[in-house]
Amino acid sequence: MEPFQFLDYIGVAVFAATGALVASRKQLDLLGFVWFAAFTGIGGGTLRDLVLGQTPVFWVKEPFYLIVCALIGLIVFFTAHLVESRYRVLLWLDAVGIAAYCVMGAAKGLEASGSATVAIVTGMMTATFGGIVRDTIAGEKSVILRPEIYVTATLVGAAVFVLAARLEMMPPLAEALIAAFAAFAVRAGALHFGWTMPGYRARAGRTEAELQEQGIVRED
Amino acid sequence: MEPFQFLDYIGVAVFAATGALVASRKQLDLLGFVWFAAFTGIGGGTLRDLVLGQTPVFWVKEPFYLIVCALIGLIVFFTAHLVESRYRVLLWLDAVGIAAYCVMGAAKGLEASGSATVAIVTGMMTATFGGIVRDTIAGEKSVILRPEIYVTATLVGAAVFVLAARLEMMPPLAEALIAAFAAFAVRAGALHFGWTMPGYRARAGRTEAELQEQGIVRED
Amino acid sequence: MEPFQFLDYIGVAVFAATGALVASRKQLDLLGFVWFAAFTGIGGGTLRDLVLGQTPVFWVKEPFYLIVCALIGLIVFFTAHLVESRYRVLLWLDAVGIAAYCVMGAAKGLEASGSATVAIVTGMMTATFGGIVRDTIAGEKSVILRPEIYVTATLVGAAVFVLAARLEMMPPLAEALIAAFAAFAVRAGALHFGWTMPGYRARAGRTEAELQEQGIVRED
Repeated sequence: MEPFQFLDYIGVAVFAATGALVASRKQLDLLGFVWFAAFTGIGGGTLRDLVLGQTPVFWVKEPFYLIVCALIGLIVFFTAHLVESRYRVLLWLDAVGIAAYCVMGAAKGLEASGSATVAIVTGMMTATFGGIVRDTIAGEKSVILRPEIYVTATLVGAAVFVLAARLEMMPPLAEALIAAFAAFAVRAGALHFGWTMPGYRARAGRTEAELQEQGIVRED
Repeated sequence: MEPFQFLDYIGVAVFAATGALVASRKQLDLLGFVWFAAFTGIGGGTLRDLVLGQTPVFWVKEPFYLIVCALIGLIVFFTAHLVESRYRVLLWLDAVGIAAYCVMGAAKGLEASGSATVAIVTGMMTATFGGIVRDTIAGEKSVILRPEIYVTATLVGAAVFVLAARLEMMPPLAEALIAAFAAFAVRAGALHFGWTMPGYRARAGRTEAELQEQGIVRED
Repeated sequence: MEPFQFLDYIGVAVFAATGALVASRKQLDLLGFVWFAAFTGIGGGTLRDLVLGQTPVFWVKEPFYLIVCALIGLIVFFTAHLVESRYRVLLWLDAVGIAAYCVMGAAKGLEASGSATVAIVTGMMTATFGGIVRDTIAGEKSVILRPEIYVTATLVGAAVFVLAARLEMMPPLAEALIAAFAAFAVRAGALHFGWTMPGYRARAGRTEAELQEQGIVRED
């Protein structure tokens, strides 16, 4: 996996930046920026290492990842006000992050388990988890609930990588780059053109209040 | 634990279905359904394996669990519109899920630690965690905050199993089935009759806004 | 680490109390109190042990921690109504908890990795995680988003401990107590005097609705 280890740093760094941007939207102090950068940056990879049983996790073995997160938090703290739309930047950085992470997750999952199914799920889980942690702690609507394509992009990246790794027609670095590019292209199309998959649209779920009113759920 | 391994599949499958139902309430696309089904289905068991140190976790060792989650997500995507009240179905499936999971969690906890206390807590934790992950990511009020009996049912199931396992009067399969049935019966009674435990009702917590108004907490 | 193992019990106990106080604000039943006390009390230490690869986690090896959480849940259930402002008590107990936990986390992180960076991050992560889990499940605004100093206090405690441990001028118990006191002093000052760090205040993040209105994010 060494040939594309740098994808891991890219994933950690851009996710850290999205975490710091959330901290700026919440008007936290410097340490709040660093904390959000670190939790978001290392969240997905930490879950990946835990479920695969590769402990201590990657940033305990290689603390430089933590330095990267802290630096990113620091930089965003002093520059975020220069950005016109921080949420738009956040979404695009998040797109780069999921592209890098779904490949790294799939690669580590494939190496650890040998199973294509496990590799694809580890890739998807790794790519989506950091953003979920970030949005949940910040109390914002999770990016996974947005209407445009999101999870599908991580599936595409992980599946392309696993397929390419099985075919063994390219050097590992090329496999990883093609897969990451595929994932990014899908998510970028979703962000730019508003691509959506055919969604389930029968009707939205009723709120708890409506359910109580209609006697489906008991009132407190 | 093999005699009742099927309880694990039941737990994963019905929790996956509740995850997919939440995805339908949020009008996600197909991959959103599969993603929610997988995270909810394997969430509790993943936490269980992690804290007990049994890594890689169960679905890395046996990827068929993931196939089950994906299939359930697919089925719910195409059939959820047929259901009159998806939230009601969700609550009942959740009841089956916690009954199956609290027993599996207690069994694995007992096997790994030999401690009845650890076994009961692992059972309760396993049973409640998937639903909490599901509700938190979806941004819905957690099922654990509902007024009717919930956590108590998982305690009953886990405690009955541990007691039965200590008495060694029955084959393991019977112990597991009786314990799961006990947990389900308690939760079903809560859902159907609105059973509640004597709750703490002195007064509800003040909101942050009220606390600020009354000078107890500083305003931002 | 044995000389200050009691700090771990203090951290677990006071975090358990804050979890139970949240349960009282949500008017849960007795088991709800115990459940919240346990998840909050052992949350941070569980994450710490997982990322460091020290599994099974501490409460599986030493179930007495679970008994402590259950007892605390029980006591709070019967006494919470006596407290004038439960949220204020919660914030002060939380301050004691993060002071104890950031030192234990740093100590275990230093022992496991030998890296000061890892030790400080493990300390901060351990100290903040329990409260985040508690607030997230309860659906309340996370304590980490509050304006007064919070994360900074955990950094101070962890950094003082690591520095003292490197200097080796004192017995371990003294190092731990000084570090915990430093963290508590910073957080106490924040609570009592409303201390804040220079925050990022350029402008608050726009809500999703505003972003849609301004055409920055597509509407659903």
